[in-house]
Amino acid sequence: MLRIFPATEPDLPVILDLIRALAEYEKLTHIVTATQARLRETLFGTKPAAEVLLAHWGEECAGFAVYFASYSTFLAAPGLYLEDLYVKPHLRGKGIGLALLKHLARIATERRCSRLEWGVLDWNQPAIQFYKKLGAVPMDEWTKYRLTGEALKSLALSEK
Amino acid sequence: MLRIFPATEPDLPVILDLIRALAEYEKLTHIVTATQARLRETLFGTKPAAEVLLAHWGEECAGFAVYFASYSTFLAAPGLYLEDLYVKPHLRGKGIGLALLKHLARIATERRCSRLEWGVLDWNQPAIQFYKKLGAVPMDEWTKYRLTGEALKSLALSEK
Repeated sequence: MLRIFPATEPDLPVILDLIRALAEYEKLTHIVTATQARLRETLFGTKPAAEVLLAHWGEECAGFAVYFASYSTFLAAPGLYLEDLYVKPHLRGKGIGLALLKHLARIATERRCSRLEWGVLDWNQPAIQFYKKLGAVPMDEWTKYRLTGEALKSLALSEK
Repeated sequence: MLRIFPATEPDLPVILDLIRALAEYEKLTHIVTATQARLRETLFGTKPAAEVLLAHWGEECAGFAVYFASYSTFLAAPGLYLEDLYVKPHLRGKGIGLALLKHLARIATERRCSRLEWGVLDWNQPAIQFYKKLGAVPMDEWTKYRLTGEALKSLALSEK
């Protein structure tokens, strides 16, 4: 019933739909600027910036995982960073999210990655409980900082 | 006086020294397993997992930045993730950290990256003040989760 496979270019419309559905769930619709053309260029161009796994439940696309390679200097080893994991609400409770994570854990092992990491919104308690059951550890002492837009440009253009 | 340049293979001993010095500052020496051989394979092998910028102050190696490409699905755009930024304590206050960040911001702009991100330990107030002055925004609502070691292996090996 459940099938997980790497997305290819014909899956672009489905990927964009999943991105928008995830953004809605995360209450972040206002920051989505992805288009099919931009996704094609960045995911299926000459230098793909990330990889996508799709989950199909029967004939229906049920969810996805988007991930890219990370690196740990302390371990001198690559890792995987899971940027997005999403399962459509009416298909939850069937183990699809878990199956996507298992698939990723296998990819991580095959690529000799030391770790699999991802960010979770602090109010997303169902997700947090699910991740903790798998043995994932919250990096509570760390906060991510982000430089973007005008602040990034302004730093880039400032005097040496 | 200050020179910033991409590290190459002969810089491996210097890179390992900087990694160890950073780990000491972050009180994380117990998790460092990096060796020159592993760094050579992962940074200067056939498929480099990260890039390193070195900062020289006169003849002395003053610090480094280690970074890799990230990806935002919502923006359908690549980003840069700064894994490590470190300046030797006796050379702080000379603008070396800032110069490394400027250099990275320029690389981000050249590569059409939408953002530059990094993690900061919550007790590292001098770093936090410095980053906020540049316009970096703390992603306070998010916590990173990490799956590693036996928990990662066990998930990879579990039944489909």
